[in-house]
Amino acid sequence: MRVVWIGAGNLATRLGLALKRAGHETLQVFSRTEASAVALAEQLDCPFTCRTEEVLPGADVYLFAVKDSVLEELAGHIAPKVGDALCLHTAGSMPMDVFCGHAARYGVLYPMQTFSKHTSVDFREIPVFLEASDVSAYGLAEELARSVSGNVRAMSSADRRYLHLAAVFACNFVNHCYALSEEVLRKIDAPFEVMRPLIDETARKVRQTPPREAQTGPAVRYDRNVMDRQLALLEDEPDMQAIYEAMSRSIRRLAWEEKKKETDDDKL
Amino acid sequence: MRVVWIGAGNLATRLGLALKRAGHETLQVFSRTEASAVALAEQLDCPFTCRTEEVLPGADVYLFAVKDSVLEELAGHIAPKVGDALCLHTAGSMPMDVFCGHAARYGVLYPMQTFSKHTSVDFREIPVFLEASDVSAYGLAEELARSVSGNVRAMSSADRRYLHLAAVFACNFVNHCYALSEEVLRKIDAPFEVMRPLIDETARKVRQTPPREAQTGPAVRYDRNVMDRQLALLEDEPDMQAIYEAMSRSIRRLAWEEKKKETDDDKL
Repeated sequence: MRVVWIGAGNLATRLGLALKRAGHETLQVFSRTEASAVALAEQLDCPFTCRTEEVLPGADVYLFAVKDSVLEELAGHIAPKVGDALCLHTAGSMPMDVFCGHAARYGVLYPMQTFSKHTSVDFREIPVFLEASDVSAYGLAEELARSVSGNVRAMSSADRRYLHLAAVFACNFVNHCYALSEEVLRKIDAPFEVMRPLIDETARKVRQTPPREAQTGPAVRYDRNVMDRQLALLEDEPDMQAIYEAMSRSIRRLAWEEKKKETDDDKL
Repeated sequence: MRVVWIGAGNLATRLGLALKRAGHETLQVFSRTEASAVALAEQLDCPFTCRTEEVLPGADVYLFAVKDSVLEELAGHIAPKVGDALCLHTAGSMPMDVFCGHAARYGVLYPMQTFSKHTSVDFREIPVFLEASDVSAYGLAEELARSVSGNVRAMSSADRRYLHLAAVFACNFVNHCYALSEEVLRKIDAPFEVMRPLIDETARKVRQTPPREAQTGPAVRYDRNVMDRQLALLEDEPDMQAIYEAMSRSIRRLAWEEKKKETDDDKL
């Protein structure tokens, strides 16, 4: 298929390269940020533009991978000019309807992964969630998605909002826990590398054991002495204290629910 | 060396088996919980007891792997009866001094990992942090630690408090983010497995990129629209809303500090 990219960030870079490897042709890259447009166009071996009015017609698919806050505006500018080509956006939290009234055929292709511009990732493993305005649009989106991923499924805009929220917890908040761990280590001049075996094992463990059951540490044991001493270590860090308290309370609640469930099961 | 285990939980099980494989002899397992004592004694091929007064003398090392809340009490009962054998505890957050006045030679051997009773882990990779009451005690603790781990280093009780806190963030809070992600997925009947590539990639990414720089998602972009919509999805979950808000605020603060640092660097 012939593809035009609207956006040239991490996701456009990784998916753009995966599509290129799968044999699709990129006609053009559009980005308002010239440096990003140039960099991606170079990698995809195609022209670029920074002006919406110069976006080329004639592609089969227009892939919108831009900040949620500008997606609607760009959809309004670009989608009406592409005829019956397929317009897809890649945002987890935006409804398909941002294209409604602008594009004839449209949908969503959401690859659920965290992307870096400079680190390649194995696209075959990435779950891709699809939605489209009609059956033929869905078929085309599916063909495109299956050419790079072995893990493609349909999901409505309504459900995808929850999926994206779940991803924020499992990725962004997890990464922030790593960042705060690094902050704490800095206080004793210990390198972040020391955490690697623990980080790997924590991620590995939940392949076999549901995370509720995999929990360890002072909060799930409700070891109030340890928790109070740890909170005291954070006395100059109100943000971290707030996270520590909110997390510990929530860990405790899940553990309590889990225990109650077991007791109820025993009663049956 | 001849070892007696005080405690028969996850850590005692995993470290006990690693020490056995390394050729050390376990003389006895003590645990107040008979079922745990029996199970570990069977795996380590040794007798067990549930009574402190029956703990055998004559071992080289007494390893205390019990809840922080009972460590001091058990140290007071058992350590005075073991002569000049080495008493070690394995708790990240407890000072070495819990043995002071009870044992002649003592220290801490803290393997920083999350342990499950039923999942084996590669002990060679696990960082082990040591502290001891004197040089000869340290030497013995080091010999024991190096027989199972290739990653052994000294750390004071004062510093170890921070290390343990960093581990709570990188392991317990991370695991809880996984658990909350699963909660969210349950609302749309999606299986937790769908998160696996994202979880793996998030853990993998911080091997190369410091977590501050690796952050993605709505909070670091300060995409207020997305954040407000996601908070609205959690309206029946006050604990999760509190975590979402505390995390997002803290992610934003780190991103701002990072940006300020870059600007300051540019000015130089």
